[in-house]
Amino acid sequence: MTHAIDIHTHIVPAEFPAYAGKHGGQQWPSMAAAHDCHHKNVMIDGKNFRTVTDECWDIERRLEAMAAMKIARQVLSPMPELLSYWLPLDDAMPLIRHVNDTIAAMVARAPDKFIGLGGVPMQDPEAAARELERLMRDGFRGVELGSNVNGVPLGDARFEPFFAAAEELGAAVFVHALHPSGKERIVGPPGLMAYIGFPLETAYSIASLITGGTLTRHPRLRLAFSHGGGAFASILPRLAHGWSIKKDFAALMGASPYEHARRLYYDTLVYDAPTLHQLIQLFGLRQLCLGTDFPFDIHERHPVEAVAALHLSDGDVKLLHHDNAARFLGVD
Amino acid sequence: MTHAIDIHTHIVPAEFPAYAGKHGGQQWPSMAAAHDCHHKNVMIDGKNFRTVTDECWDIERRLEAMAAMKIARQVLSPMPELLSYWLPLDDAMPLIRHVNDTIAAMVARAPDKFIGLGGVPMQDPEAAARELERLMRDGFRGVELGSNVNGVPLGDARFEPFFAAAEELGAAVFVHALHPSGKERIVGPPGLMAYIGFPLETAYSIASLITGGTLTRHPRLRLAFSHGGGAFASILPRLAHGWSIKKDFAALMGASPYEHARRLYYDTLVYDAPTLHQLIQLFGLRQLCLGTDFPFDIHERHPVEAVAALHLSDGDVKLLHHDNAARFLGVD
Repeated sequence: MTHAIDIHTHIVPAEFPAYAGKHGGQQWPSMAAAHDCHHKNVMIDGKNFRTVTDECWDIERRLEAMAAMKIARQVLSPMPELLSYWLPLDDAMPLIRHVNDTIAAMVARAPDKFIGLGGVPMQDPEAAARELERLMRDGFRGVELGSNVNGVPLGDARFEPFFAAAEELGAAVFVHALHPSGKERIVGPPGLMAYIGFPLETAYSIASLITGGTLTRHPRLRLAFSHGGGAFASILPRLAHGWSIKKDFAALMGASPYEHARRLYYDTLVYDAPTLHQLIQLFGLRQLCLGTDFPFDIHERHPVEAVAALHLSDGDVKLLHHDNAARFLGVD
Repeated sequence: MTHAIDIHTHIVPAEFPAYAGKHGGQQWPSMAAAHDCHHKNVMIDGKNFRTVTDECWDIERRLEAMAAMKIARQVLSPMPELLSYWLPLDDAMPLIRHVNDTIAAMVARAPDKFIGLGGVPMQDPEAAARELERLMRDGFRGVELGSNVNGVPLGDARFEPFFAAAEELGAAVFVHALHPSGKERIVGPPGLMAYIGFPLETAYSIASLITGGTLTRHPRLRLAFSHGGGAFASILPRLAHGWSIKKDFAALMGASPYEHARRLYYDTLVYDAPTLHQLIQLFGLRQLCLGTDFPFDIHERHPVEAVAALHLSDGDVKLLHHDNAARFLGVD
């Protein structure tokens, strides 16, 4: 066992309440039996959105997996498809509450093992700010956000009320890829979106928070991005080149994109030692936090070994395992 | 002076013929005077698409700039907006011919300094194959392609006739970012697209050629990608992870995405030494070719110094300066 905190894990409730709203409820999720007793199918709009394991909700199963992965603590956040930005607010709120209550109950069962990030209804930024306030009062350390809200990038000015509240409340904001643009640019089976579109979408999201001025307006905001910031590492030098030659970009962004990038946090979920090494060079060793995408199929099975492969000093490993995550989350 | 070949430079003709088609000609380009005698405005659809310098067409000015940049030879390819995929074929053909004839004339003026890549009408893949055949007969080394054709990714099966011809003819295919998806995911002035959207679009394009099977079907195809492959470096490890865990992806792609990636060529235009170093690690030193985007605003002014900053052996520098480009282009 290490002191490692995994900032990127997801939960799905074991069950969802029956739909009780007035909009038809086509997008309301439900659980269906799957091929064995350790799995269930998350049904959305009559289709199996994803087959998930009981590690999504079962504390004991989760603790076993954590021990095998040498993870001391997990940050629990909703499966992104449950963030519900696309539902009318009066449908989204009970669903988000159900998910948040599930996270709260899991944390309450083993508060030394789990840290909660909730969901908020970003389709209504004022309501999102209010839900965030409630979450922070109830012991959550912050929220998970999708990388866009119904196609609108997070850097859009309409989200000011939420980001102002997050800064004020000292909330940790973990941004996860969601519903990328460019679906028509992929050739092959639908499952490829998670491998190609997600990292590209995350890059758009980070860039929008820089070029839209959110990071300039909120210097104390603590943001972390899934999948090592996706493809943001690849576009950062080019964006910085633009900043250096275009006066209007420079005026817009304030500090250099490198400077903005180096105050954000990123998980280590990049599946390749040279890539992880490059993130450290580009973003700084103090900005990387261990993350795995547990318990979905794609998840990194050996996060501690992935860090060990970098051959860092014990102090630097401790930063990646624990200290950076604790600073991002505001714990310990 | 070095032996360096710059594989990524663009030309714009000094003038365009008057529109003589039957479709109205709104998208037909024309040249207008700009703020001084060394610049012109490329007018498209009544708007100034871009103010360009006379280095776009003037051989003498170009040779001066090459000497200053320590570049021995340039590969000339069309400004991507002239590729004309969005025009009816009977409008596109005369425009593409005018651009190709301009390139041929520039190469003829100084054949030891310039190498030509032409344009082809990819909106009609059979016609594109025929134009490629003509180009190769006329001394071109291959073509420049946009990264998508009116939103259809290059990996789409409809482009088979073109890629089959390119493989058969031994043509070099240089793929340049064009009209990215995700415009709505950018916050800020329109100019940001080139800094954020272009590299993400290039990643979609490369991925489609892998996951659509083009690279598997055409093992001898020689393809190079602009801007270091854009964000493809960032998504490759994740795509390879998908390949390793999903049987249907593996069946589709044949070899590992790493293996496909390591037979493609990429230019060095990434504006950052650690990023260039990572491309070398990921793709292999033999796959990188010097490229600058000359003579547009964004272009790399010090490409030879950017390579020197990597502190490589003389033999490795020679690969990046010359040998890889010569192998890609099929010259020397």
